[in-house]
Amino acid sequence: MGIILKDVTVVAEETASAEILTLRIDGGTISTVSEAAPATSPDDTQIEARGKLAVPGLVNAHTHLPMTLFRGLADDVPLKVWLEEHIWPRERTLRPEEVYWGTLLGLAEMIRGGTTACADMYFHVEEIARAVDAAGVRALLSYGIVSDELDERGRREMEKAEAVITRFDGTAGGRIRAAVSPHAVYTCGEAIWRAAARLAAEHDVPLHTHLAETREEVAWCEAHRGERPVAFLERVDAFSVPMLAAHGVHLDAEELVRLATRPVTIVHCPKSNAKLGSGIAPVGGMRRAGVPVALGTDGAASNNSLDLIEEMRTAALLSKGVAEDPTVLPATDVFDMVTRVGARATRLGGGRLVEGAPADLVLVDLEGTGTLPAAAPLSTLVYAAHAADVTDVIVDGRFLLRDRELVTIDEARVRHEVKRIAARYTN
Amino acid sequence: MGIILKDVTVVAEETASAEILTLRIDGGTISTVSEAAPATSPDDTQIEARGKLAVPGLVNAHTHLPMTLFRGLADDVPLKVWLEEHIWPRERTLRPEEVYWGTLLGLAEMIRGGTTACADMYFHVEEIARAVDAAGVRALLSYGIVSDELDERGRREMEKAEAVITRFDGTAGGRIRAAVSPHAVYTCGEAIWRAAARLAAEHDVPLHTHLAETREEVAWCEAHRGERPVAFLERVDAFSVPMLAAHGVHLDAEELVRLATRPVTIVHCPKSNAKLGSGIAPVGGMRRAGVPVALGTDGAASNNSLDLIEEMRTAALLSKGVAEDPTVLPATDVFDMVTRVGARATRLGGGRLVEGAPADLVLVDLEGTGTLPAAAPLSTLVYAAHAADVTDVIVDGRFLLRDRELVTIDEARVRHEVKRIAARYTN
Repeated sequence: MGIILKDVTVVAEETASAEILTLRIDGGTISTVSEAAPATSPDDTQIEARGKLAVPGLVNAHTHLPMTLFRGLADDVPLKVWLEEHIWPRERTLRPEEVYWGTLLGLAEMIRGGTTACADMYFHVEEIARAVDAAGVRALLSYGIVSDELDERGRREMEKAEAVITRFDGTAGGRIRAAVSPHAVYTCGEAIWRAAARLAAEHDVPLHTHLAETREEVAWCEAHRGERPVAFLERVDAFSVPMLAAHGVHLDAEELVRLATRPVTIVHCPKSNAKLGSGIAPVGGMRRAGVPVALGTDGAASNNSLDLIEEMRTAALLSKGVAEDPTVLPATDVFDMVTRVGARATRLGGGRLVEGAPADLVLVDLEGTGTLPAAAPLSTLVYAAHAADVTDVIVDGRFLLRDRELVTIDEARVRHEVKRIAARYTN
Repeated sequence: MGIILKDVTVVAEETASAEILTLRIDGGTISTVSEAAPATSPDDTQIEARGKLAVPGLVNAHTHLPMTLFRGLADDVPLKVWLEEHIWPRERTLRPEEVYWGTLLGLAEMIRGGTTACADMYFHVEEIARAVDAAGVRALLSYGIVSDELDERGRREMEKAEAVITRFDGTAGGRIRAAVSPHAVYTCGEAIWRAAARLAAEHDVPLHTHLAETREEVAWCEAHRGERPVAFLERVDAFSVPMLAAHGVHLDAEELVRLATRPVTIVHCPKSNAKLGSGIAPVGGMRRAGVPVALGTDGAASNNSLDLIEEMRTAALLSKGVAEDPTVLPATDVFDMVTRVGARATRLGGGRLVEGAPADLVLVDLEGTGTLPAAAPLSTLVYAAHAADVTDVIVDGRFLLRDRELVTIDEARVRHEVKRIAARYTN
């Protein structure tokens, strides 16, 4: 009943050197990582994996899954036009079943690209949880709270946020965890922020928010709060619990120094930041300051993919190009961002290929037309591989993708439903 | 004997609006573009193309095909180390048959990504021509001249450059054209540059070179030539013939103004420039100055792909991110760079889907998991599609890719040979 991956290429954590090993999975756990072939029984599933790289499942630490429905809806337009004329009007009429199908489309794309876990923030979270459960991935789910005051509306928002915890935290065999998501400094008032941090502490779950995404947001905070975003978050006790903070494009050096002493992981979303014209985040500065940096795609409406392999590549290339230095943000570092750092920050586990670790892993073809020759497999993954090179995805010891075929999602049905839904939005 | 693409999505040149049309191809030409179904005969090949986008074949205006052999050989290292310790030592021992297989690997990847034409610069060009002929694509081939003086060595270099013209220009049914490639300002002396321009004029072929790729190169030119690169090229009459100038990362505003009056197309290679730490080219400045800008991947050793869809996306995102403006370099503009501008600059034809144009075209699945919904097909191509979404590629009226299967290249054989060759280089 085990799964055996024979002669698979694995990159050693310490040395980053490639080794040909055999992995054995029993239940939800990697039971053996060895040079010798492990003992097998007739009912084991044996996979001949020579020429393939095994890596821990990739972690998308910031996304809005249902926004796949809005992919390509309005590109190349100013952020204000994009939000006010295209995204918000459609979100106001979004129906629960549409959120379900949009989420499944996003999860199908994620799995095909080797992503096994994500941190999501949206609404109709019960539909997102249903889709995550069906797809078999891991997810940190949250309701995006938007309210200036802790008034009647604000209290309703907080109730929705709490309901995500009480209804879904620990469900789907532990694959679903919950977070509390005050949307941002400029969309949630001080009392909401304080209530959100208290709620998170009470349930021992992290906060998940957007931080310093745009120059305008920082200027707004200075004008209306009288301080920069990090100072505001300190004042409202937001750092009393662990936090996933997406973007951080316009954090200044002093804010990075402050964040390094707080339980914060910044989620770098380079493609979305670039495409929306928000800018290029100071990843080098974050890391030098000692702030952990994970990687996210943001929603497919602003990316326009949920492809972490390409996101790693874009992160590395942007940093090198801006710094005019090919040695900054090497493959090993972006890989760490999308595995160990993301797994730790989302508390979803995984992120390592060692004995006793959760069996969340991905096989990537190193001998495809676009990946050969693959002298340094991790470099191949980051700089040359595409989502289409992912052949197999396992989460919690269960195949979600097998020989490039989705196991848990009826892809044709999802496409059909999304086309039906999109017809309502694009006219 | 014709090919009919039924109910295919085509984006109108003028309005950029998507239309469902039927295309008919006869011989090497697009014979009909119509709303109505054209007349058919029993021996026509009919393709049901609903849900697919037809675009002109993409043009990779700067590459070094055989360098696919060095993909992933040395990433994240300084440019000097990359060149002197990894690339040059291997190039010195590169054998003709290795160039052939490396080129075929590159062409297989190119075709799978929707590229139908490229401008290449390398050595053992006879092997590159043989591979291009076999693969069925179009290519502007050239020998990369490197010599300080027009001495004995310099004359041998010029002879090799001329041999490419006399042996290959117009061969492979007109699919192969030739250029003259003095490698760069810092690798070729004044007499070589003058001889190269004369040779190009004599045979009515363009020049193809590297220009202002790195900051060091510009500093070297100022120190050793006493002037900036564009002034040097003016003095040696290099602009007396049309020129493809790759990179242009460190051209200043005054040089861009000068270039706008010359028959020069700059080939933007954003991924290679970023990965090698050369910087981010001022594409906005080039275009505002009125300099045509095409797109190239550079070699796979520094990219590490030959994927023009991703190159378009990276170009658009980098420009938006640097400018902090989502409206700069929209999808329609990068698409124009990789089709019409590239086709014109390489003189390889194509670049348009109109009646009478060469039948070089590509079908892209708009209804894949990573492309749905595709409200604006050109945006979908640029921002969401991957090479794996390319289903069919036709050049000169002949299928090179059919239902995602390569027709002209034995891919398994190519992979086998490249693995054999790579084993010699990676040890």
